[in-house]
Amino acid sequence: MKSNDIKKLLKMVANGELAIDEATAKMSTHLDFGEVKPDTSRGERLGFDEVIYGKSKTVDQITNIASKYIESNLNFVCTGLDEAKLTELQKKFPNFTFNNEARMMKNILKPASRKMSTVAIITAGTSDMFVASEASEMLDICGIDSNIYADIGVAGIHRFFSVKDEIAKADVIIVIAGMEGALPSITGGMFAQPIIAVPTSTGYGAALQGFTALFAMLSSCANGVTVVNIDNGFGAAMSAIRIINLLEK
Amino acid sequence: MKSNDIKKLLKMVANGELAIDEATAKMSTHLDFGEVKPDTSRGERLGFDEVIYGKSKTVDQITNIASKYIESNLNFVCTGLDEAKLTELQKKFPNFTFNNEARMMKNILKPASRKMSTVAIITAGTSDMFVASEASEMLDICGIDSNIYADIGVAGIHRFFSVKDEIAKADVIIVIAGMEGALPSITGGMFAQPIIAVPTSTGYGAALQGFTALFAMLSSCANGVTVVNIDNGFGAAMSAIRIINLLEK
Amino acid sequence: MKSNDIKKLLKMVANGELAIDEATAKMSTHLDFGEVKPDTSRGERLGFDEVIYGKSKTVDQITNIASKYIESNLNFVCTGLDEAKLTELQKKFPNFTFNNEARMMKNILKPASRKMSTVAIITAGTSDMFVASEASEMLDICGIDSNIYADIGVAGIHRFFSVKDEIAKADVIIVIAGMEGALPSITGGMFAQPIIAVPTSTGYGAALQGFTALFAMLSSCANGVTVVNIDNGFGAAMSAIRIINLLEK
Amino acid sequence: MKSNDIKKLLKMVANGELAIDEATAKMSTHLDFGEVKPDTSRGERLGFDEVIYGKSKTVDQITNIASKYIESNLNFVCTGLDEAKLTELQKKFPNFTFNNEARMMKNILKPASRKMSTVAIITAGTSDMFVASEASEMLDICGIDSNIYADIGVAGIHRFFSVKDEIAKADVIIVIAGMEGALPSITGGMFAQPIIAVPTSTGYGAALQGFTALFAMLSSCANGVTVVNIDNGFGAAMSAIRIINLLEK
Amino acid sequence: MKSNDIKKLLKMVANGELAIDEATAKMSTHLDFGEVKPDTSRGERLGFDEVIYGKSKTVDQITNIASKYIESNLNFVCTGLDEAKLTELQKKFPNFTFNNEARMMKNILKPASRKMSTVAIITAGTSDMFVASEASEMLDICGIDSNIYADIGVAGIHRFFSVKDEIAKADVIIVIAGMEGALPSITGGMFAQPIIAVPTSTGYGAALQGFTALFAMLSSCANGVTVVNIDNGFGAAMSAIRIINLLEK
Amino acid sequence: MKSNDIKKLLKMVANGELAIDEATAKMSTHLDFGEVKPDTSRGERLGFDEVIYGKSKTVDQITNIASKYIESNLNFVCTGLDEAKLTELQKKFPNFTFNNEARMMKNILKPASRKMSTVAIITAGTSDMFVASEASEMLDICGIDSNIYADIGVAGIHRFFSVKDEIAKADVIIVIAGMEGALPSITGGMFAQPIIAVPTSTGYGAALQGFTALFAMLSSCANGVTVVNIDNGFGAAMSAIRIINLLEK
Amino acid sequence: MKSNDIKKLLKMVANGELAIDEATAKMSTHLDFGEVKPDTSRGERLGFDEVIYGKSKTVDQITNIASKYIESNLNFVCTGLDEAKLTELQKKFPNFTFNNEARMMKNILKPASRKMSTVAIITAGTSDMFVASEASEMLDICGIDSNIYADIGVAGIHRFFSVKDEIAKADVIIVIAGMEGALPSITGGMFAQPIIAVPTSTGYGAALQGFTALFAMLSSCANGVTVVNIDNGFGAAMSAIRIINLLEK
Amino acid sequence: MKSNDIKKLLKMVANGELAIDEATAKMSTHLDFGEVKPDTSRGERLGFDEVIYGKSKTVDQITNIASKYIESNLNFVCTGLDEAKLTELQKKFPNFTFNNEARMMKNILKPASRKMSTVAIITAGTSDMFVASEASEMLDICGIDSNIYADIGVAGIHRFFSVKDEIAKADVIIVIAGMEGALPSITGGMFAQPIIAVPTSTGYGAALQGFTALFAMLSSCANGVTVVNIDNGFGAAMSAIRIINLLEK
Repeated sequence: MKSNDIKKLLKMVANGELAIDEATAKMSTHLDFGEVKPDTSRGERLGFDEVIYGKSKTVDQITNIASKYIESNLNFVCTGLDEAKLTELQKKFPNFTFNNEARMMKNILKPASRKMSTVAIITAGTSDMFVASEASEMLDICGIDSNIYADIGVAGIHRFFSVKDEIAKADVIIVIAGMEGALPSITGGMFAQPIIAVPTSTGYGAALQGFTALFAMLSSCANGVTVVNIDNGFGAAMSAIRIINLLEK
Repeated sequence: MKSNDIKKLLKMVANGELAIDEATAKMSTHLDFGEVKPDTSRGERLGFDEVIYGKSKTVDQITNIASKYIESNLNFVCTGLDEAKLTELQKKFPNFTFNNEARMMKNILKPASRKMSTVAIITAGTSDMFVASEASEMLDICGIDSNIYADIGVAGIHRFFSVKDEIAKADVIIVIAGMEGALPSITGGMFAQPIIAVPTSTGYGAALQGFTALFAMLSSCANGVTVVNIDNGFGAAMSAIRIINLLEK
Repeated sequence: MKSNDIKKLLKMVANGELAIDEATAKMSTHLDFGEVKPDTSRGERLGFDEVIYGKSKTVDQITNIASKYIESNLNFVCTGLDEAKLTELQKKFPNFTFNNEARMMKNILKPASRKMSTVAIITAGTSDMFVASEASEMLDICGIDSNIYADIGVAGIHRFFSVKDEIAKADVIIVIAGMEGALPSITGGMFAQPIIAVPTSTGYGAALQGFTALFAMLSSCANGVTVVNIDNGFGAAMSAIRIINLLEK
Repeated sequence: MKSNDIKKLLKMVANGELAIDEATAKMSTHLDFGEVKPDTSRGERLGFDEVIYGKSKTVDQITNIASKYIESNLNFVCTGLDEAKLTELQKKFPNFTFNNEARMMKNILKPASRKMSTVAIITAGTSDMFVASEASEMLDICGIDSNIYADIGVAGIHRFFSVKDEIAKADVIIVIAGMEGALPSITGGMFAQPIIAVPTSTGYGAALQGFTALFAMLSSCANGVTVVNIDNGFGAAMSAIRIINLLEK
Repeated sequence: MKSNDIKKLLKMVANGELAIDEATAKMSTHLDFGEVKPDTSRGERLGFDEVIYGKSKTVDQITNIASKYIESNLNFVCTGLDEAKLTELQKKFPNFTFNNEARMMKNILKPASRKMSTVAIITAGTSDMFVASEASEMLDICGIDSNIYADIGVAGIHRFFSVKDEIAKADVIIVIAGMEGALPSITGGMFAQPIIAVPTSTGYGAALQGFTALFAMLSSCANGVTVVNIDNGFGAAMSAIRIINLLEK
Repeated sequence: MKSNDIKKLLKMVANGELAIDEATAKMSTHLDFGEVKPDTSRGERLGFDEVIYGKSKTVDQITNIASKYIESNLNFVCTGLDEAKLTELQKKFPNFTFNNEARMMKNILKPASRKMSTVAIITAGTSDMFVASEASEMLDICGIDSNIYADIGVAGIHRFFSVKDEIAKADVIIVIAGMEGALPSITGGMFAQPIIAVPTSTGYGAALQGFTALFAMLSSCANGVTVVNIDNGFGAAMSAIRIINLLEK
Repeated sequence: MKSNDIKKLLKMVANGELAIDEATAKMSTHLDFGEVKPDTSRGERLGFDEVIYGKSKTVDQITNIASKYIESNLNFVCTGLDEAKLTELQKKFPNFTFNNEARMMKNILKPASRKMSTVAIITAGTSDMFVASEASEMLDICGIDSNIYADIGVAGIHRFFSVKDEIAKADVIIVIAGMEGALPSITGGMFAQPIIAVPTSTGYGAALQGFTALFAMLSSCANGVTVVNIDNGFGAAMSAIRIINLLEK
Repeated sequence: MKSNDIKKLLKMVANGELAIDEATAKMSTHLDFGEVKPDTSRGERLGFDEVIYGKSKTVDQITNIASKYIESNLNFVCTGLDEAKLTELQKKFPNFTFNNEARMMKNILKPASRKMSTVAIITAGTSDMFVASEASEMLDICGIDSNIYADIGVAGIHRFFSVKDEIAKADVIIVIAGMEGALPSITGGMFAQPIIAVPTSTGYGAALQGFTALFAMLSSCANGVTVVNIDNGFGAAMSAIRIINLLEK
């Protein structure tokens, strides 16, 4: 609740227009589903309701939460679902939409209005596609169009140059890479837009489950590259949305 | 060099308006100072010339580079200078401007035009001020105004709330915190703007020289927070500049 | 055996009231079940008999130990049981009580007397519930009432404020959080009670299986927060019990 | 500010007894010294004003803060001062009290009332004394008496037994150990009181600057041992104070 | 081949008693089974033939090697076998001896002569038993008697004291502990014999899969404790055998 | 595309012999299979077409790529296939050649010409054979003969000496070792050829899944040993091929 | 105090030959110098009085302890002294003996009787000499002769073979190596004696300040190699002394 | 000593042409300077005598070794010398040649014959120059010419392209980069020659003192890139020499 709104309430209390207990109740900004308390102010703030992270929840927990969202007529989005969970949940919620490559399910009751800004999503290899899909799907839910440029990693740098002009048209660039994570450095040195780098857990041994790419991106010699958590396509999309919200304000 | 410009050159070559050797020369986009090769396309791209990172260079190397920048009439900015280097360089370049808290020196010949967008810089503790100063100074060089809100960490969360309305007016938020690095999570949950988190090396033992704050920020439960390297106020500013450049386009 | 008791025994030996061999036997303070040697002095000391940690034991080992506890008429509590073990053990010990969310089984023959002090258990997310359950169950076994305040993490800090007054009534606070582990810092800055922080393995990538939360809690800028091992709801309860035992003495 | 106090203010506003701006001002719970904002509610909460951590601050920053504390007539305590800083500050503040072993300086204007509860501080070796001193000094500032039992580590366990009865009389036990950090396990197995373990950076190689002791204490087979950051004697004292405040309520 | 034996061969060559090619052949000290080349000099050196480490080998590889040992009439010992491999191999080699707790199989054709020296094997918890079994079994194969003292960890230190006199009779002590790995420090402070510490992977979170115990043992404040790899009961036995071989020479 | 070729194209454009759009098209050096973009210039450069890394791809992805290679009449090689994938793929591509020990499948339409240089592949233990097989198979695909010398690790150093003269005949030496990774140091001290060391994930506990061998090889006291990623037999072969290509030029 | 001695005391108490308070006093096995409590039972147990580790103590603390040892007429040995401390202490204790290479000082009042067993100390490089010196000096203090074989690392393995026969005569072998730490594997494969490996902090980058050598030694493919902490020449000597004490019993 | 030479000696012994003791002496392949034992076979094998690593040696140790090399008339090369050591040694050995940027000193009595093959040395930034210098100096000592291409890192990839054709002429490529270490991937994707990557400790925070670059290079998506230790310009040169020796054979 904003400072101005608080002042308004205080004035109403001062004027006797509002009971003190009611004033207290009005400060509540979340639903209470017991163990889950969706943040309803988020929709206002970022343009979509709270998203459920499915990886650390059981199918029972997810089912329970989804049911409450249905009852409350809220948009429902759940990420991080492995194949087993997707299969089980598909049976329980046949009306929901499932994107297996993005490891997501959704039930969109109130679609977002389409934005004018666009996002370019670049991946170093085909093994990074699941992260790109998650980002792309999440952007779409928020009304933002994106293009994926897959498998254009640095070892064959001419592949990158062939799509350079297309990428230049986007407002924000998301760069996804595992292994040595070098792609954001090249990208940062070539484009002026905001760049969000996503390390992936692709690779083995010295790739350290994505930490080598993470640290490489944080150490990038290109200026102004920012980074999100390993495999976090969702977070990259959220970051792009914050920028685009600002842009379209 | 953009694809269109290449096409133009090709047409000129095709028309005999341009010699082949000259066409080759025109593709050069950097100065060559021997061991240093400033990227002149960067000024065009990001709005400022290449910045020198002084930490891993000797005073002799920095002096040498600065002299070449003076000869070439380029803006010169050098970051990451410890007290000893600042003292020595101040003697060698008495006409340059020094910001000891930000650990920078600069020689601005062509000031950037002022931008309309602003940045809020938040720090958890007073020990994080040197990073905030570096970010603020760098933004100023690029024509962007910023306000620093210092020492409003999470252990006394009411301090944060008292400046909440002011922070809400900025276009981009930079959050700087060491130790447990919790401030970006709170900030992300409260504001809709793009948020750039900077972990600092403040703390001891389990603070892991800033890695605990870094990992905490990457794992933030707040959506769309992006992160730069430890103590990297410069990088946070660069990231903000990319967003503001987009905004003011 | 306390120094005074030893003196008493020595006096009895001096007076010929006790044979030397008998004196030796009296110093034994544990049962000997072969590979397991329950510490019978613990019951006296902490108010409950030794608890078995089931995670690193086979079903056969647990069955064997439980049988000996039954024979010896001792309270039996076993923690850290995954679903497979719970299912198998439920068949073998149908009279025992099972708490699947807490991953525990118990057979309480002599219930603890109820204490007057209470504990507030706070969790950042729903994925931390299994740790909260373990703590709550263990406190209950020792006669202590607790309330769980779930899913009130820092990204939606207003959820926390809505239960602030209730939490303030508890004597000890247990704070459970994964990912960036920021909740104990907020809690420590707001309450004066003893605070026991439990990092959980919730999260991925930079969350480092709970180590980011662990290190963040140890680096907390809030004063006097103490920490136990990752996912260690049992240990947090034990620590609370030590404080409450002191309080009720 | 407590919920009840807020209600009171609201009533006063409702009754026209308090202007809205004044009501806002009354919610401020911190002083604003610019880059430092001492938390005045802490004194009320924990029984002492905010303590300055000197390690990550320059002598100039500390001098500046101390001067403002003097002006505001506040108790001033600063920890984590190395020998060089202590020497410089001793010249600047000759009226302050310095404890070089504890690496602290203080200026106590309003001494705390003495508490009845006591703390036992145990150290494994003489190299851990500086941490014990910091804890002891901090407890004393808050009105709590403590005894230090030094150099009674596990390799000569009989030394421990000789002071066992004395330790048993304390209300809270702080155990300080570096290297393998085994002392808290022994202590936890022998006493029923709350136990706060402090790992120290004593040792070399595999001692990992205190992380081996830290992890060992977190993995302790003794029940209910809690842990604070490496070398954090201050934090251990704060944790003991929270328990004793509860006890003396 | 020892220097003296080489001299002998050289003399025989000098005297024409040995052909040069034969001399070359005599230098061969290993059998060649293709991908496996058992070291036949080891039996001479350490009192037993080479032992196969089964963990990183497939059942086919083990079967193949075992068959060649049978053909060559060599003692066969294989360690590190999980339950699945043990079951499969038991079917293939019904005449071999299997010790499931020790995760070993053996086929002893030429039993070792019994030694007079003995080994005490101490474990902190019941979860460490599989390591103790491996050590005990391996010692037995080499003709050495050992006693296991299980579950006498430091949290109930009186359990340790009750078997102190028995342990004192052994020539070498093997101490096995997971979690905080404190037992070797106590043991080292109490006995004068050679002490071989074995960290185990027992524990979770901060126990770091045995690395906390490993580092704690290496940092032990007790003098002259030596350490082997995590869970390496075999290596501890081998080290004890080297000492006992020296003793019985 | 080489600088000279670009000059040629430019001349053709200048002479009107080539349309500008066609010139653009000629710069394309990769096929575009959508999510996969094989680098056709690689065959020219290194003597074989792009190799697919199967570990991070699903069977569907691999099947899809393989089909496109068949259509395009390209040599197809896929590495890093576990048993389950090998079994599935064997059914889908019965005409391909499978090497289960090397974890590879291939479909060679245009075999490489045989080279004169040879490679010696040394392994420390039998558990390292899968890496040796991968290297050997990959060399064979590129027309290079190799010999594997298995199980000649440093603990039985005489085994190494018995094949020393044979190894000395090879042009390049690949040394494969897990655990302590000592074999490259011995090898480097004995031979003058280029030496490529491959750490393997063989071992447990302190072997750190191959990182101990990796770090040991990087720290080798032998001069001029180079290292590739853990278990990376493919990379070692590629490195040898670069050297042999140079040699046979 | 041994069980038998306790029984004796109990009998004396039973017979009235010993007062209860005196019996208590007789159980004291340590001197109490305040912050230092030397373990007098250690001399009996291991053949020398407690050794002071100087690295984590100030010159004042060491001076204080040394003075008390002089007063008590005890052998004094202090290790881990850097050059600055050695210089200062040499002035304060001109009658003590200093070994700068070993970083030790000593004041031996009652020399140990000479033992018949000997120790071979092997180092990989000259940079490891300070550790070898510490071990050698410590062995000498305990009456044991040792020979140092320096700079015979694995990259020039023939150097090792030239001293093989001499090493074979020793009863115990201490192997000291930094960098890749391969020497213990070779040694373990060649000799039957007890082998104590000491990793050193020699090397850079991937040598990880001695941890690569440490982990390599723990992972050694040679059987029965035991390991002590990094740079811990003292601990290696102590371990050898335990073995030799057993041997000479 | 090669197998053939051994056979020759054996024949001479057989023929009575050589005494047995003399035969033994002839097997010695190293000089013995006490604590240093230079490997004289190395000169034969790799084309230069043993090089001294100065970092872990004192000025006294280096002086001592250098003097013995002078007496023995051997080429002397010492690397890893910091400024303080260089200054001191310059005074002691005024006739030696010093290269401060490469941190080396040398005394070449018998210069190597010049080779025909050349090496390209590429650096990402000017801060990597000291490593490039070390490699270049070492190659020169061994008779190999090299060119350094400095400051052509990936963030300004056009700088790289401008020297592409020159680099293509070299026989071996050494690529030196710190921070994210991306340059070897680009290089490997563009050239067919052997590529030796050297990570440097340039960078801060997430650059992990060179480990991020090291792991990135090991994880490179470019085929056949090999890696040496951090900052190890010497090792890279040695590896190039092994390849060029093979080439010029």
